[in-house]
Amino acid sequence: MSTGKLIGVGVGPGDPELITLKAVRALGRADVVAYFAKAGNVSHARAIAAQHLRPRATELPLLYPITTELPKCSKDYREALRDFYEQAATTISKHLEASRIVAVICEGDPLFYGSYMHLHTRLAPRFPVEIIAGVTGMSGCWSAAATPIAQGDDVFSVLPATLPEDELARRLSDANAVVVMKVGRHLPKVRRALEISGRLPRAIYVERGTMEDAKLVPLAAKPDDDAPYFAIVLVPGWEERP
Amino acid sequence: MSTGKLIGVGVGPGDPELITLKAVRALGRADVVAYFAKAGNVSHARAIAAQHLRPRATELPLLYPITTELPKCSKDYREALRDFYEQAATTISKHLEASRIVAVICEGDPLFYGSYMHLHTRLAPRFPVEIIAGVTGMSGCWSAAATPIAQGDDVFSVLPATLPEDELARRLSDANAVVVMKVGRHLPKVRRALEISGRLPRAIYVERGTMEDAKLVPLAAKPDDDAPYFAIVLVPGWEERP
Repeated sequence: MSTGKLIGVGVGPGDPELITLKAVRALGRADVVAYFAKAGNVSHARAIAAQHLRPRATELPLLYPITTELPKCSKDYREALRDFYEQAATTISKHLEASRIVAVICEGDPLFYGSYMHLHTRLAPRFPVEIIAGVTGMSGCWSAAATPIAQGDDVFSVLPATLPEDELARRLSDANAVVVMKVGRHLPKVRRALEISGRLPRAIYVERGTMEDAKLVPLAAKPDDDAPYFAIVLVPGWEERP
Repeated sequence: MSTGKLIGVGVGPGDPELITLKAVRALGRADVVAYFAKAGNVSHARAIAAQHLRPRATELPLLYPITTELPKCSKDYREALRDFYEQAATTISKHLEASRIVAVICEGDPLFYGSYMHLHTRLAPRFPVEIIAGVTGMSGCWSAAATPIAQGDDVFSVLPATLPEDELARRLSDANAVVVMKVGRHLPKVRRALEISGRLPRAIYVERGTMEDAKLVPLAAKPDDDAPYFAIVLVPGWEERP
């Protein structure tokens, strides 16, 4: 019988100090440390975890396939990604069958919008699995902004910036506190939806929230010139403060 | 000039290992460690932080006023709480004026549904403040359940169980992934809203999510007999898995 174990390790939002004791201890006993990355790019998760790895740990970068020529909603794109996750899961399963402890390190929290989940659904039915929760990117951002986000009976929503403008506006009107994720090239649309819903004056734009070069500005003061994919917009709730 | 500093320290969802390195280091330099608690109850935040406090740190429990005789929506209740937060902020401001570092320790994340926010809004305009993000209670719960909660373009919502049944049902139908918080005596209503919205089969009931005596069951299998105030219900999204 295999005594291998899969551990989904949240390493937090970017600041290397925002990793948990539990994650550090898991890295200290992992035989294999796997992480997703784009070919040619550094892995933020690996950079955060670097100082905690065992000296002889095997590193296993999982490099996303180059799919820039494929439209994101196409069948070919979905199949290329599915094949990639299948192969990654197969590679990891061989380590688990050889009784190794495999830590998959994840920025933020492993089960909150993370690629780890694609491995989890494939491997959790067959192997022992542990999840180590992490500080999410959005927590890192509202903490860096020192902005209370939600309180009491607030409804809180996370919205992907990919939603159509009218749906973004409707949902911005329908929640007390909102985080808009993956802003990138959708920034002009997100701004219009915030204007329509009357939420623009409270909206805060955050880039690289917990990095040293973080950028935090009122969205009203941020031009539509450019925004990285992982930029987020915070719309704080808690408007009726006692 | 005062060189005091207020630090809102997230200590995570309960498991003492889910505290961050940054929180541990902040506790190691705090002159005063404050925490909210009910008279006669232990503070979970203090229990998590205990082993990291300086030997001679001053502890400052902030005891909620006894308000059980007051209806929660009443003016008297709101005023009693407001007076309490005002007094707590005044007490802390004296330590800050005496150039002390005051850590307010918070379960979960300080700015996500936490009482710390009431101190923050009163003190941040007058003193240097740092926020240390923490792992939220809900991350702890879906990790303990090893249940992927949201992925890709999912809309994720946090709903307080205090909402009316029809509004809970509407919002459950309108999001891909949902966390219902503060379930307690609202459990029968939450269950009906899940039935109406067709989300009951996927709903998971979680009590004391990251404690050793955690209880995680499909909500359909949990009787309506009793639920503690901090119990939550997870409704995972990500139904279209590639």
